[in-house]
Amino acid sequence: MQVTAHQQQLIDSFKQVRQQSLALTTHLETEDYELQADIFVSPLKWHLAHTSWFFETFLLKQQVHGYQEFHPQFEYLFNSYYNAVGQQYPRDKRGLMSRPTVTEVKAYRQYVDQKLIHWLEQETHLDPDIEALISLGLNHEQQHQELMLTDLKYCFSFNPLYPIYHNPKFPKDYDPSQHNRSTPLSFIEFGGGIESFGHKGDGFAFDNEGPQHQFLLNDFAIANRLVTNEEFLAFVQDGGYQNPMLWLSDGWAWVQQQRISSPLYWQQEMEEQFEFRLSGYGKLHPQQPVTHISFYEADAYARWAGKRLPSEYEWEIASKKQPLAGHFADRKLFHPQAANPEFDGELQQLFGDCWEWTQSTYSPYPGFKPAAGAVGEYNGKFMSNQMVLRGGSCATPAGHIRNTYRNFFYPQDRWQFTGIRLAQDV
Amino acid sequence: MQVTAHQQQLIDSFKQVRQQSLALTTHLETEDYELQADIFVSPLKWHLAHTSWFFETFLLKQQVHGYQEFHPQFEYLFNSYYNAVGQQYPRDKRGLMSRPTVTEVKAYRQYVDQKLIHWLEQETHLDPDIEALISLGLNHEQQHQELMLTDLKYCFSFNPLYPIYHNPKFPKDYDPSQHNRSTPLSFIEFGGGIESFGHKGDGFAFDNEGPQHQFLLNDFAIANRLVTNEEFLAFVQDGGYQNPMLWLSDGWAWVQQQRISSPLYWQQEMEEQFEFRLSGYGKLHPQQPVTHISFYEADAYARWAGKRLPSEYEWEIASKKQPLAGHFADRKLFHPQAANPEFDGELQQLFGDCWEWTQSTYSPYPGFKPAAGAVGEYNGKFMSNQMVLRGGSCATPAGHIRNTYRNFFYPQDRWQFTGIRLAQDV
Amino acid sequence: MQVTAHQQQLIDSFKQVRQQSLALTTHLETEDYELQADIFVSPLKWHLAHTSWFFETFLLKQQVHGYQEFHPQFEYLFNSYYNAVGQQYPRDKRGLMSRPTVTEVKAYRQYVDQKLIHWLEQETHLDPDIEALISLGLNHEQQHQELMLTDLKYCFSFNPLYPIYHNPKFPKDYDPSQHNRSTPLSFIEFGGGIESFGHKGDGFAFDNEGPQHQFLLNDFAIANRLVTNEEFLAFVQDGGYQNPMLWLSDGWAWVQQQRISSPLYWQQEMEEQFEFRLSGYGKLHPQQPVTHISFYEADAYARWAGKRLPSEYEWEIASKKQPLAGHFADRKLFHPQAANPEFDGELQQLFGDCWEWTQSTYSPYPGFKPAAGAVGEYNGKFMSNQMVLRGGSCATPAGHIRNTYRNFFYPQDRWQFTGIRLAQDV
Amino acid sequence: MQVTAHQQQLIDSFKQVRQQSLALTTHLETEDYELQADIFVSPLKWHLAHTSWFFETFLLKQQVHGYQEFHPQFEYLFNSYYNAVGQQYPRDKRGLMSRPTVTEVKAYRQYVDQKLIHWLEQETHLDPDIEALISLGLNHEQQHQELMLTDLKYCFSFNPLYPIYHNPKFPKDYDPSQHNRSTPLSFIEFGGGIESFGHKGDGFAFDNEGPQHQFLLNDFAIANRLVTNEEFLAFVQDGGYQNPMLWLSDGWAWVQQQRISSPLYWQQEMEEQFEFRLSGYGKLHPQQPVTHISFYEADAYARWAGKRLPSEYEWEIASKKQPLAGHFADRKLFHPQAANPEFDGELQQLFGDCWEWTQSTYSPYPGFKPAAGAVGEYNGKFMSNQMVLRGGSCATPAGHIRNTYRNFFYPQDRWQFTGIRLAQDV
Repeated sequence: MQVTAHQQQLIDSFKQVRQQSLALTTHLETEDYELQADIFVSPLKWHLAHTSWFFETFLLKQQVHGYQEFHPQFEYLFNSYYNAVGQQYPRDKRGLMSRPTVTEVKAYRQYVDQKLIHWLEQETHLDPDIEALISLGLNHEQQHQELMLTDLKYCFSFNPLYPIYHNPKFPKDYDPSQHNRSTPLSFIEFGGGIESFGHKGDGFAFDNEGPQHQFLLNDFAIANRLVTNEEFLAFVQDGGYQNPMLWLSDGWAWVQQQRISSPLYWQQEMEEQFEFRLSGYGKLHPQQPVTHISFYEADAYARWAGKRLPSEYEWEIASKKQPLAGHFADRKLFHPQAANPEFDGELQQLFGDCWEWTQSTYSPYPGFKPAAGAVGEYNGKFMSNQMVLRGGSCATPAGHIRNTYRNFFYPQDRWQFTGIRLAQDV
Repeated sequence: MQVTAHQQQLIDSFKQVRQQSLALTTHLETEDYELQADIFVSPLKWHLAHTSWFFETFLLKQQVHGYQEFHPQFEYLFNSYYNAVGQQYPRDKRGLMSRPTVTEVKAYRQYVDQKLIHWLEQETHLDPDIEALISLGLNHEQQHQELMLTDLKYCFSFNPLYPIYHNPKFPKDYDPSQHNRSTPLSFIEFGGGIESFGHKGDGFAFDNEGPQHQFLLNDFAIANRLVTNEEFLAFVQDGGYQNPMLWLSDGWAWVQQQRISSPLYWQQEMEEQFEFRLSGYGKLHPQQPVTHISFYEADAYARWAGKRLPSEYEWEIASKKQPLAGHFADRKLFHPQAANPEFDGELQQLFGDCWEWTQSTYSPYPGFKPAAGAVGEYNGKFMSNQMVLRGGSCATPAGHIRNTYRNFFYPQDRWQFTGIRLAQDV
Repeated sequence: MQVTAHQQQLIDSFKQVRQQSLALTTHLETEDYELQADIFVSPLKWHLAHTSWFFETFLLKQQVHGYQEFHPQFEYLFNSYYNAVGQQYPRDKRGLMSRPTVTEVKAYRQYVDQKLIHWLEQETHLDPDIEALISLGLNHEQQHQELMLTDLKYCFSFNPLYPIYHNPKFPKDYDPSQHNRSTPLSFIEFGGGIESFGHKGDGFAFDNEGPQHQFLLNDFAIANRLVTNEEFLAFVQDGGYQNPMLWLSDGWAWVQQQRISSPLYWQQEMEEQFEFRLSGYGKLHPQQPVTHISFYEADAYARWAGKRLPSEYEWEIASKKQPLAGHFADRKLFHPQAANPEFDGELQQLFGDCWEWTQSTYSPYPGFKPAAGAVGEYNGKFMSNQMVLRGGSCATPAGHIRNTYRNFFYPQDRWQFTGIRLAQDV
Repeated sequence: MQVTAHQQQLIDSFKQVRQQSLALTTHLETEDYELQADIFVSPLKWHLAHTSWFFETFLLKQQVHGYQEFHPQFEYLFNSYYNAVGQQYPRDKRGLMSRPTVTEVKAYRQYVDQKLIHWLEQETHLDPDIEALISLGLNHEQQHQELMLTDLKYCFSFNPLYPIYHNPKFPKDYDPSQHNRSTPLSFIEFGGGIESFGHKGDGFAFDNEGPQHQFLLNDFAIANRLVTNEEFLAFVQDGGYQNPMLWLSDGWAWVQQQRISSPLYWQQEMEEQFEFRLSGYGKLHPQQPVTHISFYEADAYARWAGKRLPSEYEWEIASKKQPLAGHFADRKLFHPQAANPEFDGELQQLFGDCWEWTQSTYSPYPGFKPAAGAVGEYNGKFMSNQMVLRGGSCATPAGHIRNTYRNFFYPQDRWQFTGIRLAQDV
């Protein structure tokens, strides 16, 4: 049977994404795959298994006649939160699953890959809905690739030996000396009016990015770059964490109860500020963007600075004409980089580097309908108590993001590469 | 000195509202004033003192030369959450304050009232900002009047003797026999477009109701009446509380962890459904609106019914031309009443009866600025993690509400008289 | 019918004890009766009701033909922990019972008293078991009298107004100037051997004080007096609360988790040490015994001092020939008093002042059998995880105590008037 | 230099015990070494490291001139609870230490072993105190060998795949068919009087086993064998877990809060009772001793059976003339075995099989003094809130136990191989 170019392209994408998940882990120790430091992170092994489970559950079991599941209990063990599929192994116990071993999970991946590729090779006329499901599976896996990096960083941070995930090599086109020079903060104005927002068209997008709809926006201005460590340190040194007037009520309660006094991973030694990075423990770089901050911290900083956070609509307008480029995971820096002073006054860092907290709550767009079937649990059911973030980060796979992409986390979450872009009314 | 008509009107309003707080409690036992069953409710005595503290702190201490405070520690004891004023006695310990006694707190009220009225009588030309602050204090007190009823109901519900707050007398213009006949559910359509929302103008409004701004709305339809107990019971009996597919993820976690299986205050005995009301324990009335439900329950019910909750914008449009009338606290029924089948097909129950959960998160309107000074902590700092409710309830003082009024509670809160009005896209 | 002298004596005892409970509360405000600051304390009103419940449940309902219970739900509301009687209203909710009111509970007391006295007047030949049950009820009520004082003190301590329970008048035979002179610490030796321990004989004793049995004791020495505030302050100032080597492992965990750094009710202002007493807030008296300390603190202090706590056997031997006299509740001082330097070198303060922590765990004596029936739940079921205390306190009713009396609390409990007497091996 | 026979013997013991720890783990997967399912268990890797830390900290660093520590942070990472040595890595985070890896920890072991053996080979005249410290280190390691088995079992039990630790082979001298025949329960009487208790003499013993002292004991009778699964099942089926009258008050609270309804690891499927063993999941054996029960369950069972638990003194007398033989870990059965009906009426199972809960609290013997220095933290500081268990279990290394050996756990602990031997007064 002849494989069409379209089929081949799909197969190649599949192989590439699947391979990338493994590539992130191959240099690690077996022990590193098992870590789960809190309920909101998962062990690497679980990520590797769950992403395979997705393809097995929603494609192989549904589409491939006579498919033999790899293991009868994996349906239960590696279901994240799909109630339509059935009960789930308790989320907070994922780190207690020493079996299946890493080797067995890799065999599971291989089994699923082989079966899926074999099936794709047969299917010359794939139903568009099925193809969309494969795309969803691949985009889902890319999201887990990002989580693998941020979850591991979080778990490593509990080890006083501060394990090093990787030693970054700077790409040829990137001059780290810019780290030492600052880019002045400025605000770029945008006019308001009725505009279209959200995703429409043929390419892949998550259901929560649509439907495209019109929204009436006021004039606004948005910062040219992210807030830097140096700037955030000034907030800290000004007593920002001790001043309730700067905080939302829930944020202040969180600061008090959790005894928060700096971004996650910051540590002060004597007079100097250090931080833990995926490249290990070291001095804070003043010009790099502040990262690993909660929405509450972003909001308090903005209030202290006399500004505000942008809405997701403002962010979308501002980024509409920007190239989808930036420090994504393919740069293998795995840490947000300083703005480039050469492009002073221009919008920078919108994509990659840090997910940018917006002031928008994660709510359904007008007319939103979740996808049919079990994958309808993908996004819609999380539309409460979370805030929208935009733009991707240094841990997001390149090509995964869009300017309509809506990420969402709880306002207290800090373990993602989150940052702050200021905005103001005009 | 001659008191102007305007002064007299203000003094009369002041006396009326202050008197009303006491009127709600006079038939109670001293012991009833002390109850605090959870951190989110306060003892009646605390409400009576705190509302006086508001006038003492923001008016008497600021405006009246040589004012002697009633007690030096009341500033600390009865500060709710104003960090600009200073530290606060721990909220969860308010029930442990046997001193000052009820009698002493009433003396405190009298002292504050006397000083304030005396001062008002002197001030022939009151600064409009000061007058606005008095209005704020009175509206603040009305909010606490509602809380006094709902907090007491919550506390009484822990007592197996089920104390009766009051025995309602039906007003002459109200025929309770309508309780027994149902009003068919229908949907009334509204056209979309750019509309103005939020408060503007001379009358009192809270800062969170503004600024008035334009918003682009789609066509929509909204239910003529609230969801009834009978309808909600069908959801319960259909296994609504056991079906994760109907719930937001956080809602499902809440149902599971708190073992929720019915609205607050419902209790099943044998095959029959009972509930606890301010008038005591009794059988559920099928045609009365379901009440004391969380946002999660409202949202799950709407999904089960194939509908959705309205946005606060939709609600505001729908209610714009409706008279500000309904079963408010002055009716002294203190429980939501059944819709009137005589007005079949018309919008009913928008005001009074039950606060209506919207799908809108409690966020600042575009251009929102909190009030200057300590009272700036009134509304703005709560703008995270909460949902907007509209329309007032059977416990809201008549005259307190507006169609732009934005109430807000956490999605799991149930001790207010909350209810459900359905909506749908057109 | 003629009442015998024996009957009259019983009736008089009954009246006296019952009256004493009320006497402790008559000068208080209604609001004070309702306080419950933690699960381990109960509101005064509950104590007044529960002690009546005891007589109603175990005597009137069992013995008096045709007895009409005062209220059908009181059996449930005021049962403390007698599973044999039935379910109990949740202990942590006792403060939420605004009804029955204080007045109603006093009426309940009066009803029970009247019925019981009337019955006693009829019973010329009371079964000894029944008479023992009445004695148990009276001793039970005396225990609650002590708890009323310590529970109220605990609850009052949460009120920054520091309510004053009473202003003590020193008795004529007591010279408080001794407070200012110290009594040297010395140790009195006792020879070991086989001795009899525990209660035997006709007078009332709790079941846990028996059976009398022999025990082989080593030689030992015991301190002449209790550890003073001054001495304990030296431990604090020497970093006693920061040094893990001084603490039992569980004690150290408790100190860390609860952030304990001084006895309960101590408060440092500038350089001076204050404490809260039932007579209000004031300076610490250096020569008064340290009180309101946990077993862990007593044990750590003893280790710091190079001594140990006595066993309950040692304490019993040491106190055997001492008069049953001391500062009990009838002195109405309600605070432990300094040792008397005139009796230097003699055993002092064994009875009254402070309950003395022993190193003995609260375990059954050899051959212990709980009483038959529901009152068998009185003592035996608490024989795990608690430590024995001996000697009574300034809040214990005079006449309630014996030298075989075994009180018991958890090692972390501090709200009783507890103190330290040191011991050592010879 | 010539190694003396005594030196060689010490070196051989050292090698044997150290080797045994590794032998327990060699067939496991790397992932299995990392599991920590609760704060009271530790990962296997941690056990392997900590036992090496003990020798490094208390011997190599103290005794070997110029000793170079293996890693500067291991002092912190692998300190269990020795405050005299310094701060400790948080106990509940031990499972988050993916580095050092298993391989590195094994290298650490090898390094410590080599250095220690090399040193021992030099020391022809070892100070007896130092030799005692080595013995302590080896006995300490044997205790951790037992914990490795019980901790791993506990962690494996959270995995629905029920990993198998080992497939037992029955030794030649052991006929498992006895499993199917019951041994009648009988009671063996012992006379009381003054007896000597505790350890005295040259052999190794823990400090808590002494000093030897006299105690006056009453006559008593003790059961010939442990309570069986069949007998305990009768308690369960009789509603033992639902009847508060059978339980200590703290035990009943524990049963209610933790929803306990059977021994740990029991699971009912349909009408049959299964359990999880180190050999996997399978049917309960009726004649095997009930195991993995708390003190509370043991105590409740004894009350239900009309008996009581023995005191540790009674147990010590009863076992005094018994051979130190039984099913210990060297049998490699790792599960308690049925009593042997051939020895009907004789004392059985005193050593090995199950640790036997006594009614004795873990308190210091009269005159007890902890060892000097850091190892003084070994036993003494745990002498509160725990109960004494006697006799060792199927997971205890043979040769580790003595009849004076005092093990101790909290009354709610269940993850050890604990069981019940009944006793009664005579």
